[in-house]
Amino acid sequence: MSLIDRVRYSDFHPLIMSAEAAAALVPAGANVGMSGFTGAGYPKLLPQALAARARAEHAAGRPFKISAWTGASTAPEMDGLLAAADAYEKRLPFQSDPICRNKINAGEIHFIDMHLSHVAQQAWFGFLGEMKVAVIEVLGVLPDGRLIPSTSVGNNKTWLEIADKVILEVNTRPPLAMEGMHDIYYGTAIPPRRTPIHMTHAAERIGEPYLRVDPSKVIAVVETDQNDRNSGFALPDAVSTQIATHIIDFLAHEMKQGRLPKDMLPIQSGVGNVANAVLAGLLNGPFDNLLGFTEVLQDGMLDLLRTGKMRQASATAISLSNSAYEDFERNIDFYRERIILRPQEISNHPELVRRLGIIAMNSMIEADIYGNINSTHIMGSGMMNGIGGSGDFARNGYLSFFVTPSVAKDGKISCIVPMCSHVDHTEHDTQIIVTEQGLADLRGLSPRERAQVIIDKCAHPDFRPLLQDYFDRARQKGAQHTPHILGEALSWHERFLETGTMHG
Amino acid sequence: MSLIDRVRYSDFHPLIMSAEAAAALVPAGANVGMSGFTGAGYPKLLPQALAARARAEHAAGRPFKISAWTGASTAPEMDGLLAAADAYEKRLPFQSDPICRNKINAGEIHFIDMHLSHVAQQAWFGFLGEMKVAVIEVLGVLPDGRLIPSTSVGNNKTWLEIADKVILEVNTRPPLAMEGMHDIYYGTAIPPRRTPIHMTHAAERIGEPYLRVDPSKVIAVVETDQNDRNSGFALPDAVSTQIATHIIDFLAHEMKQGRLPKDMLPIQSGVGNVANAVLAGLLNGPFDNLLGFTEVLQDGMLDLLRTGKMRQASATAISLSNSAYEDFERNIDFYRERIILRPQEISNHPELVRRLGIIAMNSMIEADIYGNINSTHIMGSGMMNGIGGSGDFARNGYLSFFVTPSVAKDGKISCIVPMCSHVDHTEHDTQIIVTEQGLADLRGLSPRERAQVIIDKCAHPDFRPLLQDYFDRARQKGAQHTPHILGEALSWHERFLETGTMHG
Repeated sequence: MSLIDRVRYSDFHPLIMSAEAAAALVPAGANVGMSGFTGAGYPKLLPQALAARARAEHAAGRPFKISAWTGASTAPEMDGLLAAADAYEKRLPFQSDPICRNKINAGEIHFIDMHLSHVAQQAWFGFLGEMKVAVIEVLGVLPDGRLIPSTSVGNNKTWLEIADKVILEVNTRPPLAMEGMHDIYYGTAIPPRRTPIHMTHAAERIGEPYLRVDPSKVIAVVETDQNDRNSGFALPDAVSTQIATHIIDFLAHEMKQGRLPKDMLPIQSGVGNVANAVLAGLLNGPFDNLLGFTEVLQDGMLDLLRTGKMRQASATAISLSNSAYEDFERNIDFYRERIILRPQEISNHPELVRRLGIIAMNSMIEADIYGNINSTHIMGSGMMNGIGGSGDFARNGYLSFFVTPSVAKDGKISCIVPMCSHVDHTEHDTQIIVTEQGLADLRGLSPRERAQVIIDKCAHPDFRPLLQDYFDRARQKGAQHTPHILGEALSWHERFLETGTMHG
Repeated sequence: MSLIDRVRYSDFHPLIMSAEAAAALVPAGANVGMSGFTGAGYPKLLPQALAARARAEHAAGRPFKISAWTGASTAPEMDGLLAAADAYEKRLPFQSDPICRNKINAGEIHFIDMHLSHVAQQAWFGFLGEMKVAVIEVLGVLPDGRLIPSTSVGNNKTWLEIADKVILEVNTRPPLAMEGMHDIYYGTAIPPRRTPIHMTHAAERIGEPYLRVDPSKVIAVVETDQNDRNSGFALPDAVSTQIATHIIDFLAHEMKQGRLPKDMLPIQSGVGNVANAVLAGLLNGPFDNLLGFTEVLQDGMLDLLRTGKMRQASATAISLSNSAYEDFERNIDFYRERIILRPQEISNHPELVRRLGIIAMNSMIEADIYGNINSTHIMGSGMMNGIGGSGDFARNGYLSFFVTPSVAKDGKISCIVPMCSHVDHTEHDTQIIVTEQGLADLRGLSPRERAQVIIDKCAHPDFRPLLQDYFDRARQKGAQHTPHILGEALSWHERFLETGTMHG
């Protein structure tokens, strides 16, 4: 299908141009809103053209940088190329690109790590500055100028509203049959004019299938014909399978105890291999008629939908492996009836996460013995990817799991430590910690009780005696609500930085 | 007015008994739900009788403890006496009593420090165990058995619903003319049956003025005739006045920039002298027609109401000084029309705090240079009071301020530190930090940018060069997203523990 067939609003036809020509319309120093969430629906050609422009400008001795605001992570052809071209001044609210990460940790890019449910409203409030241009991937334009969203919605609704100018990338690769899958909610407002969001079921549609844009703001239309990043997942290994088993056993136990309804509650699952393994575990688990209410629909959730274990899933992005994507495209009519893609403001909304009673499952980098969680930082200073939506779901969900293998780096790092080197989720927000070693149910426990349960259930046997020794000695000195030895609390991380291992 | 006049449901008359007789009905080891929020509306005689029973049992060599769940803090005659009598096994979700605090920090009481908006639902979900008895202060009983709430609502609605048995303390001291001031919402449910909370204005009534109780669960009615704790506030001093000035100047600036509506947004103010001083500052500030949407209505908010600067205020408790309380009682007809007391589940509800666009102002113990906040712990291990509702408001509010004097303990402690010794609010939830030195607006800043602003604006001059030195040296080594020197990050706290001062 050609571009003209996809762009059925004729006023836009004169705006069709090359990515290079469109990139020339982006002012230096601008805040640029980009589409894109977890490697899905990001603009594919314009960032490359912008990177080329930055390199040319720099070669000519002229400064050229932009600040990029997205939904979440994008792909090497956006974050990788723009970071490599030193074209980023600031980046928010999430990223996962190795080159971009290195530049952030080298102090060359300012990265602002935000709760994903906060981004659209803070931008709308004017807290983040003015957005000069939005660059949004869409699948097509209706005859009346409305836009058919792509494989992610992210913050596109807000970017289209608040940007001075808009550049559209029309991607002709994904099937137009996705039309109708999206649910764009236009009922939000700035206080004091906000009203309740009338959703009481995870799969309820409350909006419309199209994005609106003021046509007079559109300054360029660029054609792309490319798939999303579509990175694969590792097959579930023994460790992640064990984690999944602990979670499923726990959920079955809670249901038996009457603390979970028989129909289960909607499931949120973070991004990554362990999260995907948990979903794979649910495939063979005892629960039927599941619902998904999550940020990103990954392979595991697609499997649950295909097999009928899950009835419907709500997300803001579809991020699949190549083989899963092929299945998605082949069976698009089946999946369109079962998947709803919403703005991330809605997919992650505290109001909805609490009301619907979401079961939140998120991975982490480390937990400390008192249940504080580090989701973002390596050894206190280095940014990994960002907090993403983990806080939106963990704080407001019905049940909240944080999961990790008990060790990393071939056993040199314990993911259970005396004190987290950075805290993203506090003890107040952590209910259940799971490693392959076991599951620590922290509900209703004091810090000292938590510590013993986490050490016993979650720590790797190689580190368990060291953690117990720390905890025992901390209980011999100082205040005893949260016993710590401050001079040692971060020594495991220091030792790793100095010797390459947390082992003594 | 006599007890019989207050208890107009005659089936309860045979249940009137002494506090001692009622205390004998509380099973050893029970989870006991108590009324009480910030020294208001707590049961006054039954805890004393329980403490006496505990002492007698212990003297006879028998164990006797209970676990007490409240709304928030109570008073010496409850938390103080029960803690002193070694009658507490566990305590949740907040306390501020010196004896109770000492026992917690001695490791003799397990304290569970929870977001105040989480408590009722987690108890209802069954996550905290069974509640055997609820002990609830009320002002009276209607002829049909419904209860007139007292000076706080807290978690009383939920305690009355989930407890096996109920003991009522009918306090004849507060005026019955408070009747009609309360707004008890009975529309909550357990997922998946939850629906939107239909409130779109801070002063909107959505419930009914009375608490319901199943009369068959009531096992005792005890008479009290006592005022609440009613502790006084320090008069605003130079430091807290300066903090208030910074905040008011900032709000005026935001309004001018169009980032705050001209009518202002509803105000939440934490508990304590600094918070009270900020409210005193608003008394002479440029804003009119204010609305309060907060946990605790303190003297400062009463002043705003009396003078007409504030139209209406919503809270879950009224906690006043003696003189302010006298004014409240004298002008009860005036205040009843302007104050709404709600369950803390509603006063602090994330859904409402976000929808209404609350301006959150909370005090803290320390902030680190990257904007992480410690609200609860002294030097990493000792509990002060608890997180209270600060997280409910800070995470979900439109604007969020954290305030503290820049130094404590006669200048020996810097309240701005390289790394917090405990984190209750993460960098993702902190927007604005204020000390008497100045105001750091962190919105849209990366960690390195935040650090420089916090050091420049908020640190005390005595500590500023030391913080700058730490930050400068941290920028010379390691990853640069959040530059830290882990071996030094907590050294200021260690130094204080060893030498009694953070000064080198």
